[in-house]
Amino acid sequence: MHKLTSAEIVVLFLSLGVLLATARLFGEVARKLNQATVLGELLAGIFLGPTVLGALFPEAVQWLFPREGSVAIALDGLTTVAISLFLLVAGMEVDLSSMWRQGRAAIAVSISGIILPFSVGFAVALLAPDWIGHEPGPDPLLYALFFAAAMSISALPVIAKTLMDLDIYRSDLGMIVVAAAVFNDLIGWLTFALILGLAGMAGLHTAWPIGWTLVMTLGFTAAVLVAGRWAVHRSLPWIQAHTAWPGGVLGLALALGLLGAAFTQWIGVHAVFGAFLVGVAIGDSSHLREQTRSIIHQFVSFIFAPLFFASVGLKLDFVANFDVWLTVVVMVIACAGKILGCGLAARWGGIARREAWAIGFAMNARGAMEIIFGLLGLQVGLIRERMFVTLVVVAMATSMMSGPLIQKILRLTRARRLSDFMAGRAFVADLVGDTTGEAVGELSAAVSLATGLDARMIAARVLERESQGPTGLGDGVAVPHARLEEIRSPVVGVGLSRGGVDFNAPDGSPANLIFLILTPRDDDGAQVEILADIARTFRSDEVRQRAVEVRSFTEFLALVRTQGLAK
Amino acid sequence: MHKLTSAEIVVLFLSLGVLLATARLFGEVARKLNQATVLGELLAGIFLGPTVLGALFPEAVQWLFPREGSVAIALDGLTTVAISLFLLVAGMEVDLSSMWRQGRAAIAVSISGIILPFSVGFAVALLAPDWIGHEPGPDPLLYALFFAAAMSISALPVIAKTLMDLDIYRSDLGMIVVAAAVFNDLIGWLTFALILGLAGMAGLHTAWPIGWTLVMTLGFTAAVLVAGRWAVHRSLPWIQAHTAWPGGVLGLALALGLLGAAFTQWIGVHAVFGAFLVGVAIGDSSHLREQTRSIIHQFVSFIFAPLFFASVGLKLDFVANFDVWLTVVVMVIACAGKILGCGLAARWGGIARREAWAIGFAMNARGAMEIIFGLLGLQVGLIRERMFVTLVVVAMATSMMSGPLIQKILRLTRARRLSDFMAGRAFVADLVGDTTGEAVGELSAAVSLATGLDARMIAARVLERESQGPTGLGDGVAVPHARLEEIRSPVVGVGLSRGGVDFNAPDGSPANLIFLILTPRDDDGAQVEILADIARTFRSDEVRQRAVEVRSFTEFLALVRTQGLAK
Repeated sequence: MHKLTSAEIVVLFLSLGVLLATARLFGEVARKLNQATVLGELLAGIFLGPTVLGALFPEAVQWLFPREGSVAIALDGLTTVAISLFLLVAGMEVDLSSMWRQGRAAIAVSISGIILPFSVGFAVALLAPDWIGHEPGPDPLLYALFFAAAMSISALPVIAKTLMDLDIYRSDLGMIVVAAAVFNDLIGWLTFALILGLAGMAGLHTAWPIGWTLVMTLGFTAAVLVAGRWAVHRSLPWIQAHTAWPGGVLGLALALGLLGAAFTQWIGVHAVFGAFLVGVAIGDSSHLREQTRSIIHQFVSFIFAPLFFASVGLKLDFVANFDVWLTVVVMVIACAGKILGCGLAARWGGIARREAWAIGFAMNARGAMEIIFGLLGLQVGLIRERMFVTLVVVAMATSMMSGPLIQKILRLTRARRLSDFMAGRAFVADLVGDTTGEAVGELSAAVSLATGLDARMIAARVLERESQGPTGLGDGVAVPHARLEEIRSPVVGVGLSRGGVDFNAPDGSPANLIFLILTPRDDDGAQVEILADIARTFRSDEVRQRAVEVRSFTEFLALVRTQGLAK
Repeated sequence: MHKLTSAEIVVLFLSLGVLLATARLFGEVARKLNQATVLGELLAGIFLGPTVLGALFPEAVQWLFPREGSVAIALDGLTTVAISLFLLVAGMEVDLSSMWRQGRAAIAVSISGIILPFSVGFAVALLAPDWIGHEPGPDPLLYALFFAAAMSISALPVIAKTLMDLDIYRSDLGMIVVAAAVFNDLIGWLTFALILGLAGMAGLHTAWPIGWTLVMTLGFTAAVLVAGRWAVHRSLPWIQAHTAWPGGVLGLALALGLLGAAFTQWIGVHAVFGAFLVGVAIGDSSHLREQTRSIIHQFVSFIFAPLFFASVGLKLDFVANFDVWLTVVVMVIACAGKILGCGLAARWGGIARREAWAIGFAMNARGAMEIIFGLLGLQVGLIRERMFVTLVVVAMATSMMSGPLIQKILRLTRARRLSDFMAGRAFVADLVGDTTGEAVGELSAAVSLATGLDARMIAARVLERESQGPTGLGDGVAVPHARLEEIRSPVVGVGLSRGGVDFNAPDGSPANLIFLILTPRDDDGAQVEILADIARTFRSDEVRQRAVEVRSFTEFLALVRTQGLAK
């Protein structure tokens, strides 16, 4: 029996542990900087791999992430499974029905946003291959097709995330973008699958005529999206009725994903395509419960995806293979084609100018998908290291610029949240006073520490506002507040009172949770947004109860943040 | 670079998909038969492997589950990771504080339940090795130590599951058993780790003195359980406050588990021990949110565990290596030692006779742990195939007999649930009538179809009961019912009425969900238990709304079952 030795198991666990920990850490830092986590995960791999640590400590890195032998094979198997499960989840996020609902506009944006970058990419790669550093080797036609497809892809997960962050996911514009991205994903992966099939790179069936792989791919796509989708939708209630929950559905989803992946790999397109299609078929059923979806989603997003994207960074030296000129050319082709293609189609579809360009920039984000695309192209030999690094950089750059540019074009402001404006120094775990004046005084002193403002001035202004009408919300929550010229961004002081302080709440209950909210005088929205966030966060009895019992600012912040995100 | 070829990826995905699907299927069948799912998962592997399919179609099975080459290595890596994550979850279920709360009684039961089977096992293995088929090879002392440890282990997950199924998990008896099993798990794994260390089988540090591995093992255990536990508890609020939720904690838990596993593997005890200890340290923190715990738990229990246990069944021919005599001897040693050890200690601790023996039988369940134990022993060469098969059979037999015997000893009956007594034929998706009499008539006809009882008799008895007092519960739910001599077990007819039927509910609302409940006259508990289950299941507005909208019995059953189990 062929097995890992004890020493190899040590290396396998150590490399997985280091990879996961570093990827999650860098991913969190990226998130703090308002960037996609995938950017951080990729940088974690680049940091651990030959680009940084591998250049400094070649032997140690070679030992921890070997490129030969059993551990390399086991890691390759694990990351291949990881990326297929990531595509399964990406497929589950595809909502076919919303695509049809948005109808004509979305499909026009999508098709135009595919055709324009595809045509430009194809023309450049075929007619001026030197511009994009064509190297001898692969068939020029295949190379051009691959490059064109790489220019035309979008990344639904990154796009959806950007829209959610900007709070426009559920707007008309958001729905059109998501529907267009869904269609783009489907067509993009199908095109890519066909190119891989054409290339016959998989080399499993050299005897097959080229047309056969195409027929198999299209047939499988149709079978999964029509018959498969129907069968899953029909069988889910039976499975939920007769098997352990959520284990029955979890097991079914993953087993079908693995089998679909095996099939598409076998016909010569990549495993990820089968997993993606199975994901679409499963995710589309209205019988799938939210909790099942979220277990798969979170485990894959936070464990498998970081492992995969970090492993991409390990593969080569991103500095040595970076080519500025190539990157600029590819970036221009990618952005111009996509933004113009989508934007113009949106304009023709009767969408206002600003919104139309916002759609263009939203669709331009390529994120994880372009990276996977590039990696598979590299693996089957369609492209070289330099083009791979270029595609990764383009993927990251287009994703990073998408959010800020949409925000600028649409002149959006984000709803302010409580957790953004609390501070450790403005937190009083145990208020001593039991009157409104005393409590406001203590909190004003704390806020003064955090801001440098005069404590007596704060207290006076807050109590002046209080005299115009009480700020007790009931259920033990009070929100004394004031608007000040002296500050440029909101500040919230938080005080907990075990005994309770009377803030004249309508239900007569004394306040145990007291939020002193100061907002800039010229900011009309901040006060209302923060109040709404407080009301939402402390809606349930249980959360209020736990809030009063915390003993430190960190615990309080943890409660607010996990509560704010929980369903 | 050493990578999987395209053909190998096909086999890897296909084998994982087939393994997972078969394991889940067999696991569900086991569950239906009131057995531990691990039994089904193991049988799935035995079915797919050399014992059944491999004997019939050796070439196909050899192709799908190769024993040599890259796919075998990738599968070995995956299942090694899977079992370590399973132990991480098992560790997270260990509740150290409940162990201390139960105190003396639990620890007495546990220690006595370890020492007696350990001593008997050790004595037999050393003095009469022929009884248990000792084969030349390993050091007799190590072999005896290993066999003794295998006799003394319990399996917390199986034990907890059995107690929950019997609804005595939260009883005094349940708490003592769980606390004793926690202690038993800790000591059992520590002993096992020390034996592996003594054996030096890992062979990584042949130059190390034996004592060194022991010191490292004990030192690591103490460090993780004291310093590690403290550090995790202190840092969790910070992580929940400052990272994506639940991704931050998920990533931390898995990364620490992998690193702990790497460390224990490195010092010469197995990776699973490190993962288990890290799980204990993490699971013990009261800051760990239930949702995080449940994501890890469910993904590991329903995906990684089935893959691992099915892969155990693939490893060898369970029929050819089955030895009746050996199994009987080992079974007697294991059961006698454990049941007497625990039962006598419980009696001495002042626990009543029936309860004391119930504790003994509960602690006797060995389930998954004994299988993992045996597999590791086989892998490091401490035991041979015949003993491994024996240990697996003993693990299964002790787990299977545990529940029924406790139920018998304690004369327990399980609370009856709505879903056990509904039937497709007694379900009316759209009641026509809009009076109490008409609705009861339609439901009686349906129940009559399902039971063969006379419809008019049922309707008459139900309406007679109805005349003594209305059965509308309010919120659109009504529970007309009767107790009949004619039936031996409860029957529930379910009718949905879009228009609503007046059952004189206290809130005046017409009933849309009507349950016609018939119970045996001599069964005092059934009616109340089923009523309580209905009230609990349809507590929320959302569930009642969804219930009225279902179109088939299967959908209704799915709703009831997923609702009943959801938090």
